[in-house]
Amino acid sequence: MSQFTECEPVHEFQMKWWGWGSKTRLADLSHYPGIFPYMKKHFGINAKSQPEFQLKPLKLPPSAISESSLVTLSKAKILFSVTDECRLTHALGKSYRDLMLLRTQSLEKDKFPDIVLFPKSEQDIMTIYAWCLEHKLAVIPFGGGTSVVGGIDSLRGPGQVGAVSVDLCSMNNILSTDMASMTVKAQGGIFGPQLEKLLGQQNLTLGHFPQSFEFSTLGGWVATRSCGQNSCGYGGIEDMVQSLRIVTPKGAFETLPVPREAAGPSLKEILLGSEGLYGIITEVTIRVKKCPSSQHLCMYAFSDFAKAANAGKMLVQHEIPITILRISDEDETEAFVAMAKKAIPTFKEKIGEIYLRWMKIDSQKFCTMLVGFEGGDSEVKAHYKTAHALLRRSGGVPLGQGPGKKWAKDRFFLPYLRDPFLDLGLLVDTLETSTQWSNLHHLHQEIKTALKQIAEKQKASCKVFCHLSHYYANGVALYFSILANRQDGRELAQWMEFKQMANQVIFKNNASISHHHGIGVDHKTHLFHSPLHRAVVAAIKTQLDPEGIMNPGKIL
Amino acid sequence: MSQFTECEPVHEFQMKWWGWGSKTRLADLSHYPGIFPYMKKHFGINAKSQPEFQLKPLKLPPSAISESSLVTLSKAKILFSVTDECRLTHALGKSYRDLMLLRTQSLEKDKFPDIVLFPKSEQDIMTIYAWCLEHKLAVIPFGGGTSVVGGIDSLRGPGQVGAVSVDLCSMNNILSTDMASMTVKAQGGIFGPQLEKLLGQQNLTLGHFPQSFEFSTLGGWVATRSCGQNSCGYGGIEDMVQSLRIVTPKGAFETLPVPREAAGPSLKEILLGSEGLYGIITEVTIRVKKCPSSQHLCMYAFSDFAKAANAGKMLVQHEIPITILRISDEDETEAFVAMAKKAIPTFKEKIGEIYLRWMKIDSQKFCTMLVGFEGGDSEVKAHYKTAHALLRRSGGVPLGQGPGKKWAKDRFFLPYLRDPFLDLGLLVDTLETSTQWSNLHHLHQEIKTALKQIAEKQKASCKVFCHLSHYYANGVALYFSILANRQDGRELAQWMEFKQMANQVIFKNNASISHHHGIGVDHKTHLFHSPLHRAVVAAIKTQLDPEGIMNPGKIL
Repeated sequence: MSQFTECEPVHEFQMKWWGWGSKTRLADLSHYPGIFPYMKKHFGINAKSQPEFQLKPLKLPPSAISESSLVTLSKAKILFSVTDECRLTHALGKSYRDLMLLRTQSLEKDKFPDIVLFPKSEQDIMTIYAWCLEHKLAVIPFGGGTSVVGGIDSLRGPGQVGAVSVDLCSMNNILSTDMASMTVKAQGGIFGPQLEKLLGQQNLTLGHFPQSFEFSTLGGWVATRSCGQNSCGYGGIEDMVQSLRIVTPKGAFETLPVPREAAGPSLKEILLGSEGLYGIITEVTIRVKKCPSSQHLCMYAFSDFAKAANAGKMLVQHEIPITILRISDEDETEAFVAMAKKAIPTFKEKIGEIYLRWMKIDSQKFCTMLVGFEGGDSEVKAHYKTAHALLRRSGGVPLGQGPGKKWAKDRFFLPYLRDPFLDLGLLVDTLETSTQWSNLHHLHQEIKTALKQIAEKQKASCKVFCHLSHYYANGVALYFSILANRQDGRELAQWMEFKQMANQVIFKNNASISHHHGIGVDHKTHLFHSPLHRAVVAAIKTQLDPEGIMNPGKIL
Repeated sequence: MSQFTECEPVHEFQMKWWGWGSKTRLADLSHYPGIFPYMKKHFGINAKSQPEFQLKPLKLPPSAISESSLVTLSKAKILFSVTDECRLTHALGKSYRDLMLLRTQSLEKDKFPDIVLFPKSEQDIMTIYAWCLEHKLAVIPFGGGTSVVGGIDSLRGPGQVGAVSVDLCSMNNILSTDMASMTVKAQGGIFGPQLEKLLGQQNLTLGHFPQSFEFSTLGGWVATRSCGQNSCGYGGIEDMVQSLRIVTPKGAFETLPVPREAAGPSLKEILLGSEGLYGIITEVTIRVKKCPSSQHLCMYAFSDFAKAANAGKMLVQHEIPITILRISDEDETEAFVAMAKKAIPTFKEKIGEIYLRWMKIDSQKFCTMLVGFEGGDSEVKAHYKTAHALLRRSGGVPLGQGPGKKWAKDRFFLPYLRDPFLDLGLLVDTLETSTQWSNLHHLHQEIKTALKQIAEKQKASCKVFCHLSHYYANGVALYFSILANRQDGRELAQWMEFKQMANQVIFKNNASISHHHGIGVDHKTHLFHSPLHRAVVAAIKTQLDPEGIMNPGKIL
């Protein structure tokens, strides 16, 4: 496993239903004293005096599944659960919308799954499909449950009387390793940490580290077209999949285990990103690499976002082998600097400010770039040296390895911070898109301006951050975070105003409605630029899931 | 344009209908005196005494299009041709099967296009679709006409009374350049040399050089999932396409100009490789690169194929940046060595034999590897140095730059040699596949053995060569050439026996039925491993081409 990754497998049962991640791990804002003045300044929130949110126990509606209809499942020895806790942890993903639906107790009664099933084999899955068809139930495939786009909402299709969450956590093994071809066949339900642990025992890595890594699964990554933070070095999940196997209501089939082919429309690329619409991805043959012997992660400061983005563009267009690249705009950098500040400025902080001033960087308004390298010792040194020279020429001011190490240590912890921010009365959301390089600054500005206008109408204070998270020679992914004063009583309506506006601006710009979060429910209104595109996706569904039992209401 | 490329644009009208390439260019075997003893030894052919094949003029069946029904086209100012020569040059591609169908005058009367149309705009294409629908005609999209899998066979669908070849050669411009994003938007009908010439004027290159480069088009490359000889450095056509636009009978639409997205099944990857089934690709936004300032191409000898293949695998798995890599097995090397021999052995040849012996390579049975590098001067030197060290450690014996330069000079001329071989009474065919590394040697042997058994049954002498032409960390493409004594009177049946056997072995091995030639007619019987795969491809067609006018009989 990469040294950038510090975590242990956590089963979804150990996850909070009211927030991010493991129940045993909480974010304590008092470790980030610099946040309090930031909150005061931008949102008028006197953090320390804010009352903690009191979470009321949720009362779930009764399950639509009668005991008598469970006989088939029992006979087939398929594990199931109808407990409130299990149904609750499988009801929603982990978006701001999801958490507010639960915190405000406003999730409609028919949006909970009626039962959670735990298949152990493809045969179990086929049995479940037949059972759901018989009992008019929707099938909601469940990997790690970390969707932030409503991808696992327990929606019912037309005529369906209930919804079944199908949790793949029992299909979590590595099946075979082909060292000559550098591929490993694994089951879809395996979680990130377990996969990397088993690969690491063979000195192999997949190199796929999305922020959800600890709590998400291989099958989920494939079904949603996931992309990890090391994508500059390892690519997106589509680059990592040699072949895959899917169980649809019409039967199971798989793509060929070949590196490339000219065999008509790509079946692999049709099933990748299908978000449970066509079936459940049970097996994936992944392309693995040797664990890198050396890693180097360092940070640079730039006077402004345009300079930093241009330097990032040059790194990728010059094909300098980097693994990680993240550029925060001025607003995001301000927030990160605030988070890093101690209650009383340290000597190191003061020296840092003097250094920045000396290097002609305004410490109140600048940008940071995090850049990482992996590989053999001499390669990493050589690539770092080449990149360093380019970045210095482009106005980059080196800040050393310290901030990079801190980011690597905290990379999977950051989402935990959302929970105390929610307690403070904030709206906290993220969204992401991708566009060609020539449209970057226009899109960046237009999204920020549009979201701030929404906040103004809401009379809410608002900060919109952005970082560039994934890089290509021909374009880049933009990742936005929104912080705003929450409007009590209209939490969901307020969120929807931001979401709709962002979707509209992205759509109008011909940017992607999602770079790596997927479509689910939240993006489907702005996915199809042509009705023919929609017709194509729907026509495939009709072939593989003619009765429409699979994950209704998503994408289409 | 790459220095590896020496050619000028040639319009398809200047192509031979009875052989490969430009009418003004012929292969003269007397320039390859080493071929004659090779022919004598392996096929018992005394080449010099062989009578030249006398090509009889072909009499075409009358066109099914009545003059009165041409009025719509005339009104819309759409250029067309019903001359015998034009219909003949658009009737078939350039496979062995195609040439033998014409040489033996056995192409059925209803397999010629009835008319050739030359649209200049998307509006013209829509007019053509409406006209074909009205008159019950099949639409056969025509790029450069170099298909070797029957991809442009003028087949009629059920109820159709004729076939129309739609030649895109008038839609051949570059539309815009986005230097920041390193993308260029071009029309689908532009030919390779013209595209590279226009790109070269901006110091840009696409880097896509399939062997058909001189006579094939951008739209054709995209429609067939083409892959060029520089794929190690530039990737396949799917890596080079940022977005594309297609005109289907249901209307035109396009994919988003984004570098990557998580937006459901990939629309781009559905249209890529669709081989005219869904519509005509009118515009492609391609990802371009700066022209390399330096190139280096050199050759190595290996004692056997396994050692050479292993060295090639290590080059790609160690991610050493190479542009071209080609490994010929012992049989192919023998043929190339024969072709390079002079009538009387030169001093250089003799020295070469001594060198090989001294390096413990058996000059009668060895393998060659061609490896090429592109980039900045210092990069090329550094990458060559790294590769050279690895290849030396792996048993590679350097043969210098001479053979590489010769290959680069001849790379687009080699297909011309097929014509005089046909004149000599040989069957000459090629086929290609891809598989994971662990299956390479098994597949290589099984295909060679199976094809030789076919030849034995036919009582024909036979040589089967193979080279590895495209490389991936997780697998490789195998390209086979078959030479055999032709069976007069059963030319097509003999060919079909080879083809069916190769298809069966590839299918059984879960290898790709094509790495880069495509499916067309020749591979469709062995494309679908599951009826669900077929159903998916067909369902998309029903949405975009409900009347089934587009390229009937291909893929499905």
